[in-house]
Amino acid sequence: MTEAHEKGFFTEEDSVEVVTGRNAAAKDERLKFAMEVITRKLHEAVKEIEPTQEEWLQAILFLTRTGQICNEWRQEYILLSDILGVSMLVDAINNRKPSGASESTVLGPFHVEGAPELPMGANICLDQKGEDMVVSGRILDTEGQPVADAVIDVWQANEEGFYDVQQKGIQPHFNLRGIFRTGPDGSYWFRAVKPKFYPIPDDGPVGQLLGQLGRHPYRPAHLHYIIKAEGFETLTTHIFDPHDRYINSDAVFGVKESLLAEFRKIDDADRARELEFAGSFWDVEHDFVLARKGGTGR
Amino acid sequence: MTEAHEKGFFTEEDSVEVVTGRNAAAKDERLKFAMEVITRKLHEAVKEIEPTQEEWLQAILFLTRTGQICNEWRQEYILLSDILGVSMLVDAINNRKPSGASESTVLGPFHVEGAPELPMGANICLDQKGEDMVVSGRILDTEGQPVADAVIDVWQANEEGFYDVQQKGIQPHFNLRGIFRTGPDGSYWFRAVKPKFYPIPDDGPVGQLLGQLGRHPYRPAHLHYIIKAEGFETLTTHIFDPHDRYINSDAVFGVKESLLAEFRKIDDADRARELEFAGSFWDVEHDFVLARKGGTGR
Repeated sequence: MTEAHEKGFFTEEDSVEVVTGRNAAAKDERLKFAMEVITRKLHEAVKEIEPTQEEWLQAILFLTRTGQICNEWRQEYILLSDILGVSMLVDAINNRKPSGASESTVLGPFHVEGAPELPMGANICLDQKGEDMVVSGRILDTEGQPVADAVIDVWQANEEGFYDVQQKGIQPHFNLRGIFRTGPDGSYWFRAVKPKFYPIPDDGPVGQLLGQLGRHPYRPAHLHYIIKAEGFETLTTHIFDPHDRYINSDAVFGVKESLLAEFRKIDDADRARELEFAGSFWDVEHDFVLARKGGTGR
Repeated sequence: MTEAHEKGFFTEEDSVEVVTGRNAAAKDERLKFAMEVITRKLHEAVKEIEPTQEEWLQAILFLTRTGQICNEWRQEYILLSDILGVSMLVDAINNRKPSGASESTVLGPFHVEGAPELPMGANICLDQKGEDMVVSGRILDTEGQPVADAVIDVWQANEEGFYDVQQKGIQPHFNLRGIFRTGPDGSYWFRAVKPKFYPIPDDGPVGQLLGQLGRHPYRPAHLHYIIKAEGFETLTTHIFDPHDRYINSDAVFGVKESLLAEFRKIDDADRARELEFAGSFWDVEHDFVLARKGGTGR
């Protein structure tokens, strides 16, 4: 500690201690700790980058624009967190699972409360647009036993890569959304259409940054799930189409190995007729394993 | 490197490499480097803090509010940079001076272009409010030789802690601002009033953060200077009143040991008369040492 630092004066070498030393009277220990870490990492970054005054100003203006484009239906800072892998990191930290349990991924901005609870097997595609798909599997515990009364909230984009809430007046209300409840055997099934890759909103500061970094804005095709059951940790996750062109470069880093499902193309006229499909269709089978509440993380 | 990482899939341990690995095609090497450092430090901070999802959302909303309160005359992100010591750090990195040269400090938001050039000795206080003060000194090079034709741009808050631009219609236009040019002896002098401490704008997200951290929003009393001379690095700095109650806790960390001036109270009727002051006054003497262009930093 230099003499200048003891007096509260700024020096380049003691910059972190001078700043965090001011927080001695912070009311909230958690905030004090977080600001100590944030200040230290921020100063480390500045000392490593050595920005010019002009570069510093560009960063200030980028952060300002990112805040200013936000409104009640657009959250550009969440998008920034997503494309820097921070959302996935926070998700990972908060969802360390016991071995064998299904992994989580980001919620995303398109979940809607109040989707209808449907009978097992219902078709969540309300406008008949897209390639038919049947999805099935089981909800299990980490011992492989079925979980009854599990509530499965599922939602997905349509064949053009849009969620219903992005195309109000074009897609029917609650298109490609539904809630299903498992019976004693823990199994579920529903019908839908094959989802498609789509870009995250890329007409703002975050999209510009992606462009400057030579990155595309696409997410590979996926279905979203939130699975809740009494006595188990809630699982928020996706399943992905492993053959999607963007599977190895999800703009928001949501893909994990264990979330790859198999999308099989089926040409079977009898099964199609049973499912009330016109011809060939996609078959996706995927089991989910829930972690018991209070179970140990890894 | 894990197998998942090679496929571009997210894992907690490889989170930095997965994200920065996507920037391989970045057009601008400098941006690529900066984003590599920012991503790494950001992930380090998240891994050390381990925020809950709710804490992460609070951070997102803080950053959003900080952007949204900005307008053409308010820059809350610069304020955030200031109170975290980042502005001073960037200033320090960009203004490493040869030994003996005067140190710089932050510009601040209240500099105005186009202040009048005044004859040496002019009184920049246009409304006669406050305690009279005379400021004098010399502009020198690092060998102690006078710098002729140096242009000194000076501005300060009034006795209530406000700049003219904060009190339009109350203070005269260009009150407490002036530009002076040195002669062959390098000396300068002007008259003004003793400045006062003042708060940075604290009615926004940054002010709230200061409050939560148990910090006050005040800056100790100071005069601002920008000094330019042919062949020398431009010097942007302050001088401070060392007896100000906030001298050891400037909210924006602008104080450096070498920027403390002496403010002497003078009771001398003859000198007061010469200076056209009514009674006792403050006498401040401070020399500035300019670094030659292309000189070596520390």
